[in-house]
Amino acid sequence: MSAVAWEAGKPLSVEEIEVAPPQKNEVRVKIHFTSLCHTDVYFWEAKGQNPLFPRILGHEAEGVVESVGEGVIDVQPGDHVLPIFTGECKECPHCLSEASNMCDLLRINTERGGMLHDGHTRFSKDGKPIYHFLGTSTFSEYTVVHVGQVAKINPEAPLDKVCVLSCGMSTGFGATVNVAKPKKGGSVAIFGLGAVGLAAAEGARVCEASRIIGIDLNPNRFEEAKKFGCTEFVNPKDHNKPVQEVIAEMTGGGVDCSIECTGSTQAMVSAFECVHDGWGVAVLVGVPSRDDSFKTHPIHFLNERTLRGTFFGNYKPRSDIPGVVEKYMKKELELDKFITHSVPLLDINKAFEYMLRGEGLRCMIRMDA
Amino acid sequence: MSAVAWEAGKPLSVEEIEVAPPQKNEVRVKIHFTSLCHTDVYFWEAKGQNPLFPRILGHEAEGVVESVGEGVIDVQPGDHVLPIFTGECKECPHCLSEASNMCDLLRINTERGGMLHDGHTRFSKDGKPIYHFLGTSTFSEYTVVHVGQVAKINPEAPLDKVCVLSCGMSTGFGATVNVAKPKKGGSVAIFGLGAVGLAAAEGARVCEASRIIGIDLNPNRFEEAKKFGCTEFVNPKDHNKPVQEVIAEMTGGGVDCSIECTGSTQAMVSAFECVHDGWGVAVLVGVPSRDDSFKTHPIHFLNERTLRGTFFGNYKPRSDIPGVVEKYMKKELELDKFITHSVPLLDINKAFEYMLRGEGLRCMIRMDA
Ligand SMILES: NC(=O)c1ccc[n+]([C@@H]2O[C@H](COP(=O)([O-])OP(=O)(O)OC[C@H]3O[C@@H](n4cnc5c(N)ncnc54)[C@H](O)[C@@H]3O)[C@@H](O)[C@H]2O)c1
Ligand SMILES: NC(=O)c1ccc[n+]([C@@H]2O[C@H](COP(=O)([O-])OP(=O)(O)OC[C@H]3O[C@@H](n4cnc5c(N)ncnc54)[C@H](O)[C@@H]3O)[C@@H](O)[C@H]2O)c1
Ligand SMILES: [Zn+2]
Ligand SMILES: [Zn+2]
Ligand SMILES: [Zn+2]
Ligand SMILES: [Zn+2]
Repeated sequence: MSAVAWEAGKPLSVEEIEVAPPQKNEVRVKIHFTSLCHTDVYFWEAKGQNPLFPRILGHEAEGVVESVGEGVIDVQPGDHVLPIFTGECKECPHCLSEASNMCDLLRINTERGGMLHDGHTRFSKDGKPIYHFLGTSTFSEYTVVHVGQVAKINPEAPLDKVCVLSCGMSTGFGATVNVAKPKKGGSVAIFGLGAVGLAAAEGARVCEASRIIGIDLNPNRFEEAKKFGCTEFVNPKDHNKPVQEVIAEMTGGGVDCSIECTGSTQAMVSAFECVHDGWGVAVLVGVPSRDDSFKTHPIHFLNERTLRGTFFGNYKPRSDIPGVVEKYMKKELELDKFITHSVPLLDINKAFEYMLRGEGLRCMIRMDA
Repeated sequence: MSAVAWEAGKPLSVEEIEVAPPQKNEVRVKIHFTSLCHTDVYFWEAKGQNPLFPRILGHEAEGVVESVGEGVIDVQPGDHVLPIFTGECKECPHCLSEASNMCDLLRINTERGGMLHDGHTRFSKDGKPIYHFLGTSTFSEYTVVHVGQVAKINPEAPLDKVCVLSCGMSTGFGATVNVAKPKKGGSVAIFGLGAVGLAAAEGARVCEASRIIGIDLNPNRFEEAKKFGCTEFVNPKDHNKPVQEVIAEMTGGGVDCSIECTGSTQAMVSAFECVHDGWGVAVLVGVPSRDDSFKTHPIHFLNERTLRGTFFGNYKPRSDIPGVVEKYMKKELELDKFITHSVPLLDINKAFEYMLRGEGLRCMIRMDA
């Protein structure tokens, strides 16, 4: 069974479709659990995005390899995997660079027109093709994915939990631990307390930051954020000066680092300007719109601030994510608190409703129910 | 004898003045050599700057301690020192941080109104006070400086060469070796081929970068820049597309790092956008104007580029500069090629003329002649 998005903004329809066998360098995965991320909703609404329908959405998931195509040696049927929206070929300059995870061959490519790497689709209904999404399309009992887009993980990891590591949690957590890298005892500001921002807060908690300041326009986020280590909260709407000034006053000149998880350029500028001169590091995670622009006075850079952006928390999906799963297994990282709802595949449209109402964090979708 | 700037933009007058003895935590230094830096010219022209006259300019220099005030234990009469426009108290959060050199007590403060730290001046002529400049005022045979603003160096270092390490050369060289940190074999773009930019190129040469691309609007700079390791040149005026695109094409997607040494915001944006996604690092050095702004699309950050600014090459003046002098002594760093002119103090106005005409790099001013 698969949840097919036949039209922009219309409820998905759960039905039988055909899923072709995996071709060269591909694997077919039986999905057990998948969760809804904001990016699925953006492409389903198709407001700022290319409308491609019918389509199978979904990219945050966990499953078991069912069969493999020609040339696949890294995984075999029965392996537990996380399909990941950005791949790792292990051969291009990015994959060979320590710093980057933006694989030339398999990096996220929303312009690929809903096809797999070879320009074809593996999904169809009565002979009519159905588009893929980010190369993952996990809202389906069976999906076909490039082998460079699956991370093979510990088979003992609970499928319904580590699922969230295939997108949002790794993105936020990695932005903190791999990029911002707060020191023990340091101060951290998190802009945006959705799942990604709270995963960034979880990273700050694990790094033993002493102050974790949560900033959101929606005060309903604050109570929940305490569970993720936030020690203080600021709502920009409560102040009649820029929030970066409020934070500078609270912290004697600025925080040691900040992580922006909103997608708002206003928040990006505030996140940059609120870090301390001399050593402050600001990290951008939120996805901006096509014609946004980031604007600041260059003196803020001259005063020895650093600004960086990151993508999937700078994790290399195949090389690094299995280790993040191990962190969860060793209880160094908490995931359960991110999963606030659970529905069977037949009720997948409820997951969209929760997200649109801003209710909870992640809704787990159970494929076998 | 001292060169006094009595009025904005008027030739300096070389004359006798009174220099008071050093007070608590101060030293009086006999200057042997000083050179002219662009910043002196900005404050002498006093166009965008607070006009404070009469004033003794000068901040790139080398001298010998003549006497010390109460509480000074780190240096004593006879020590060879470089007076430096930004200080190091060794006690504030910045001085204690590994990352910063922006001392809370002694960082550059152009708003201090031309006085020393205690709000008074040590210079006068017939009882009339004369303003200090950046706490250094080195266009004078004797000057009084806070002990936190002098770096004690190897007495065997040639005074007329290491002089240039007290501002421009350390700024450019440090921007590369301390901040951009190109890897051996990497590619580097240098925007602006004045003394600071060429010192940045010298840093790239020392780091064994394989390609050092020099960018300047003034093609007269290119021939000289070859001596500083530049391997290729781009004049933005020769192209009808943004120079960042030209550089991306030359380098298969962008350089590994770039260093902006112009003060132009247009060059700052180009320097940022011309670094490679995934790992590129851009460093801003040029001093912008008061109402400039830096503007780019945030996606350039998201694609894993880093932007940082630096001040005095991130060197801590007292802790690090003696080591840079040693690098010169060990011939790991070349300085002689930066000194293209030399005049006696009586001819100091010629140094201003060379700078205004864009002729050469540094003009050495000999105090004893
Ligand atoms: N870079 C990546 O690899 C990557 C991966 C996944 C998600 N993302 C992006 O991360 C961002 C956050 O994702 P999410 O799922 O947590 O979204 P979300 O909508 O659940 O949370 C965003 C939060 O930001 C708050 N917010 C919005 N504008 C704000 C402002 N100006 N100041 C303060 N708070 C503000 C909202 O109230 C909301 O609580 C999105 O832009 C998403 O596209 C990036
Ligand atoms: N951050 C610090 O600690 C520090 C210290 C000293 C100097 N500076 C600054 O560094 C900058 C360079 O100093 P300098 O003494 O070498 O100056 P300079 O005037 O000798 O050299 C600047 C060069 O940049 C070129 N240029 C100007 N606009 C350009 C553009 N848009 N694109 C390409 N090239 C361009 C000019 O043609 C010139 O050759 C200045 O802004 C200076 O104020 C900063
Ligand atoms: Zn790759
Ligand atoms: Zn996602
Ligand atoms: Zn200090
Ligand atoms: Zn200078």
